[in-house]
Amino acid sequence: MIELYHYVPVANGGKVLMALHEKEIPFRSHWIDLHAFEQHSPEYLEINPEGQVPALVHEGHVITQTSVINEYLEDAFPHSPPLRPSAPLEAARMRQWNKYIDDVVMEAVSVHGWHTGAGQIARGYSDEEFDILMARVPLEKQRIKWRQARAGFAQEKLDDCTAKVAEAVARVEQALEQGPWLLGEFFSFADINFYAYCGGGLARMFPQIGSSATCPRVLEWVERMEARPGVAKALATSAP
Amino acid sequence: MIELYHYVPVANGGKVLMALHEKEIPFRSHWIDLHAFEQHSPEYLEINPEGQVPALVHEGHVITQTSVINEYLEDAFPHSPPLRPSAPLEAARMRQWNKYIDDVVMEAVSVHGWHTGAGQIARGYSDEEFDILMARVPLEKQRIKWRQARAGFAQEKLDDCTAKVAEAVARVEQALEQGPWLLGEFFSFADINFYAYCGGGLARMFPQIGSSATCPRVLEWVERMEARPGVAKALATSAP
Repeated sequence: MIELYHYVPVANGGKVLMALHEKEIPFRSHWIDLHAFEQHSPEYLEINPEGQVPALVHEGHVITQTSVINEYLEDAFPHSPPLRPSAPLEAARMRQWNKYIDDVVMEAVSVHGWHTGAGQIARGYSDEEFDILMARVPLEKQRIKWRQARAGFAQEKLDDCTAKVAEAVARVEQALEQGPWLLGEFFSFADINFYAYCGGGLARMFPQIGSSATCPRVLEWVERMEARPGVAKALATSAP
Repeated sequence: MIELYHYVPVANGGKVLMALHEKEIPFRSHWIDLHAFEQHSPEYLEINPEGQVPALVHEGHVITQTSVINEYLEDAFPHSPPLRPSAPLEAARMRQWNKYIDDVVMEAVSVHGWHTGAGQIARGYSDEEFDILMARVPLEKQRIKWRQARAGFAQEKLDDCTAKVAEAVARVEQALEQGPWLLGEFFSFADINFYAYCGGGLARMFPQIGSSATCPRVLEWVERMEARPGVAKALATSAP
């Protein structure tokens, strides 16, 4: 039995939820409310000592890190619909996209997300309450991010991240000249990855970048993504 | 035919050189002298527009990013000695190590490497010469690193990176309680990865961390690594 500990179906959680539904793998969902800081509760830290979601548990084994989890799903469920190409060169192309999306795009979008979303949450607590919550965060880099989000990121940092998003969208726009998906005809984890971190929220978060004037193919691709039954099912995931 | 564009057999270049030799895959070596900034030459930028080594070329297809390259070698040469476990859970454990090593350990060690090695190279040029060289560097984050290396990194940054190296060594020391390699009995890309970025230069770069008092198992593992014929062959790679 697969168990998934996750929050809303965007970003990290969405990436694995979409993969599970697209691969038609049954799983039990455990909702971890990031707004209530449940990811830092003693119970959850027993599952993932780093206090991050999602975490996948399969037959008692805990697997973390979204791209590692998705490759695992591909390896462990070889008879489910494939989301990683079997040709070595195509698999390498997928992993190059994933590395770029995980390292650059995720970070750039997440700074904007932390600036608004997490910043708002963090400012809702008094200094004292916030310090108590921070003392429970296991990873130093996450504590730094929470404190930055509460204070607000510098405009220069936000502009730099916006430029990175624009470049990523331009690269995807160009890739989509070759076919309906990032790897041409093959729908893969790379599509899920870009959608989860950037594509899904593009028009809302970055309206100046995600317009039909600048990236018509990306916007059509967003529609194709959301029309997929597995993706749609994942996006319909809500609090229990 | 495999062609590899690389520099000395440590860090990024070492990671792929060790993989090729351990997997006994024949290849043609192309030496790219980073001291002469050959990675930013117009000829090399045609192969890798990001101006980074190594790059692997297989039947005309260029593959970059060391962990992507190594997974590709595993996929494309399935009859060579395996360096990725076939069991899905073990493959996930390997990828978790690789992600941690690529994201955290590589960065921490490389700041020290840039501080001394690249800093020395960069300070050997006049301001004017250096500006001309920088104008040829395609990636902004690399230009920032070169400028920081030339100026020297802040002590706080260096201390933070040293602490990250110490934590990584402690994690590996603990993992080696279970067997001779990071994944127990199975020698994998995770061993190559940790050796290339950290283990190989540990005693020299971080003598206070890499001592027999703090990490006896890691030091024995370094000896085991260097006794492997493929690793030894890779380490013997020198300028043409």
